[in-house]
Amino acid sequence: MTADLIVTNATLVTADAAGTVLHGAALAVEGGRIVRIGSAGEIGTAARDVHDIGGAILMPGLINTHCHAADSLFRGLVEDLALEPWLQTVWKAEGAILTPQTVRLGAALGLAELLLGGVTSVMDMFWYPRQTALAGIELGMRVATGGIFIDGPGVDGGSPEQRIADATAFFDEFGGHELILPGTFPHGTYTVAPESMRTSRDLADRHDALWSTHAAETRAEVADISARYGRSVIRHLDQLGLLDTRTVLAHCVWIDDEEIAILARSGASVAHNPVSNLKLASGIARIPAMLAAGVRVTLGTDGAISGNDLDMWLALRLAATLHKGFTLQADAVTTGQALKMVTQAGADALGVGDRLGSLEPGKLADMIVIDIDRPHAVPMFDPLTHIIYSCTKSDVRDVYVGGRQVVRNRELTGIDLGGVLKEVSALAPSIARSIAG
Amino acid sequence: MTADLIVTNATLVTADAAGTVLHGAALAVEGGRIVRIGSAGEIGTAARDVHDIGGAILMPGLINTHCHAADSLFRGLVEDLALEPWLQTVWKAEGAILTPQTVRLGAALGLAELLLGGVTSVMDMFWYPRQTALAGIELGMRVATGGIFIDGPGVDGGSPEQRIADATAFFDEFGGHELILPGTFPHGTYTVAPESMRTSRDLADRHDALWSTHAAETRAEVADISARYGRSVIRHLDQLGLLDTRTVLAHCVWIDDEEIAILARSGASVAHNPVSNLKLASGIARIPAMLAAGVRVTLGTDGAISGNDLDMWLALRLAATLHKGFTLQADAVTTGQALKMVTQAGADALGVGDRLGSLEPGKLADMIVIDIDRPHAVPMFDPLTHIIYSCTKSDVRDVYVGGRQVVRNRELTGIDLGGVLKEVSALAPSIARSIAG
Repeated sequence: MTADLIVTNATLVTADAAGTVLHGAALAVEGGRIVRIGSAGEIGTAARDVHDIGGAILMPGLINTHCHAADSLFRGLVEDLALEPWLQTVWKAEGAILTPQTVRLGAALGLAELLLGGVTSVMDMFWYPRQTALAGIELGMRVATGGIFIDGPGVDGGSPEQRIADATAFFDEFGGHELILPGTFPHGTYTVAPESMRTSRDLADRHDALWSTHAAETRAEVADISARYGRSVIRHLDQLGLLDTRTVLAHCVWIDDEEIAILARSGASVAHNPVSNLKLASGIARIPAMLAAGVRVTLGTDGAISGNDLDMWLALRLAATLHKGFTLQADAVTTGQALKMVTQAGADALGVGDRLGSLEPGKLADMIVIDIDRPHAVPMFDPLTHIIYSCTKSDVRDVYVGGRQVVRNRELTGIDLGGVLKEVSALAPSIARSIAG
Repeated sequence: MTADLIVTNATLVTADAAGTVLHGAALAVEGGRIVRIGSAGEIGTAARDVHDIGGAILMPGLINTHCHAADSLFRGLVEDLALEPWLQTVWKAEGAILTPQTVRLGAALGLAELLLGGVTSVMDMFWYPRQTALAGIELGMRVATGGIFIDGPGVDGGSPEQRIADATAFFDEFGGHELILPGTFPHGTYTVAPESMRTSRDLADRHDALWSTHAAETRAEVADISARYGRSVIRHLDQLGLLDTRTVLAHCVWIDDEEIAILARSGASVAHNPVSNLKLASGIARIPAMLAAGVRVTLGTDGAISGNDLDMWLALRLAATLHKGFTLQADAVTTGQALKMVTQAGADALGVGDRLGSLEPGKLADMIVIDIDRPHAVPMFDPLTHIIYSCTKSDVRDVYVGGRQVVRNRELTGIDLGGVLKEVSALAPSIARSIAG
């Protein structure tokens, strides 16, 4: 029996429900799926390609459930402002710069950073989502994205009818693509009226698809929504019938116990974005309380304009440590809970938990190789602890999506990254000018 | 006029008081000191060595004011416990494993990680400090360390008389060494009686030297000291006459407004350790209040047994963002304030602010080169923003201490790192056994 690929001599962190870790292990891939896992001896080397990773960690690719990849064009442009004034300046820059062409460039930049850092699936919300999908396909990574909904003309000047048409066209174009998970993406309750929220949701439902929005990111947003609708953000979404297992809510920083219970009951997922929430002074989400209540917590980088990078390892480290320091509980979030956020819970939130999120026979071979020959990786008593508390994105050596190698020894196989960086640098002066004066 | 070294084609972040940044700049070094700074054209290339860094960032080496480098031997060994129970287990492992030989090995491991990450000066507190000093000298980095003081026999079995003799011997051996800044290091008010605190201080004073201790790290510690002495930790230290410009206090998480005023008045420095404080659930230090009051705030990694690495860039990122999220103020700590913590303020805390902490003519050439050809570094609107919010330790390409290159293209020039990693890995099974059962 000849496999397409065998990765052998691995410290295999499966991220399965039992937390299985295998030393001296190997994994065989056929048709993009994992077909066998076992000791290196059991699995052997009968494959078209055999990659001996020399004892390095092999684990599932990370899943990022909230991002605006193309916003990397504006990294570091607007600093030290709170969300609301920050957003006004960001929208000014976006309005001046963004076209389908520049979004494609920005998406290539952002997705390249993610993929090099071991993120194999990302949920992305941005203008001209078709461009981000195409950039993802070119890189060979999975992207959950689709039509955005916002009141008013927005950066792309779209009318309400055009938005529905665009979102529908996205489903038509990418519905069957192996790398694209289509959905609809209304911006947030403070920028999208209830009717439009429902329209976006109905469209997603008709396609059996994902639906994601920003929710309860700042105190000001909650005050705004409460004043407008007489109920807080989560209650408002619940009232509109928008919370179920297909829902991914980004942030959820300002929610009370009852709202946590609503989220748990509904099966909606939360995308926690600690890097962005700290930088923008939005606050610290009540993650331990959500976990205790049974809410599905996943992890996002948010965009590099708030971040200022797309570093899932930093998000992971913060998810595991920030809440310990904030609640004064040393086990507020455990290593197992943190790992789950970026693996199985992320896959479940994207509706593909049966195919992604762990390394197990039958699942797609989305997986990453982590170098362990760095001074910060030695000694290693527990690979899991190492992943959560010591790893950085620069430790990611190889990345596979569906068994196809898309990063080889820290280099992308799909695109000319140097060319992208040059194009972005050439655009930078116009970007700087866009917010001047 | 021929210099020893010219680094040219630099984006020069001087970290001087005015925040000067020069593009297309160069810097000349003679006798280990910076002698000229200017445009690449002005400085020319008349030097024994000319390093063209291709537009990369050149900035001062980072200064880490609180570390236990050799504790890297125990990285990831004890997890998800609060400080007090954690410390009991740590001390058990240390007691079983530490000898002068293993401390030398652990110090080489920890200091190598720091130096590769751009830390050129570190204040380190650990058993057998002579070994850490020797490891630092071998690597070519600056280490502030010296005799430790603790009640009881400690890991090294020292008597009170022996501790004084050891600390004195350290001053004698390293007093004039260009790379070593000697001092005395009592562990903390909860482990060192007032008389011994004073003894350690008198010894430091006689040598015109540094004095550093842990202070107000946890609520439990403050309660303990208040119960024993009828006053909180900072007031206790103040009452004992231990606070002045030579004092560096690690942590200071649990202090009130009056204690902040005492610190500001005394000129003592605080070593903020956000990575460790979060992981050990110690809490979040009131850094914005300290800065507002004029307290000198510096930055530390703490040890890798709490961290779990020695990543000054993570500490820097957290110093700049954690307090924004915690206080809900988007300018709670500015980029300029954050940069100062790891440069000039760090140098001032170590008593060498006239020689280190910025790149200016007359100062020692402790400097690092930061790659900017990574996806997370493009575009770059402001090098300072980039340093604080996007850089990671893996972006550090070259490191110079006193003009001597100690890291060249991410490789140490002073020691065989592979050999150190192998030795540590060989010791790991004994370390794991030391806390079993």
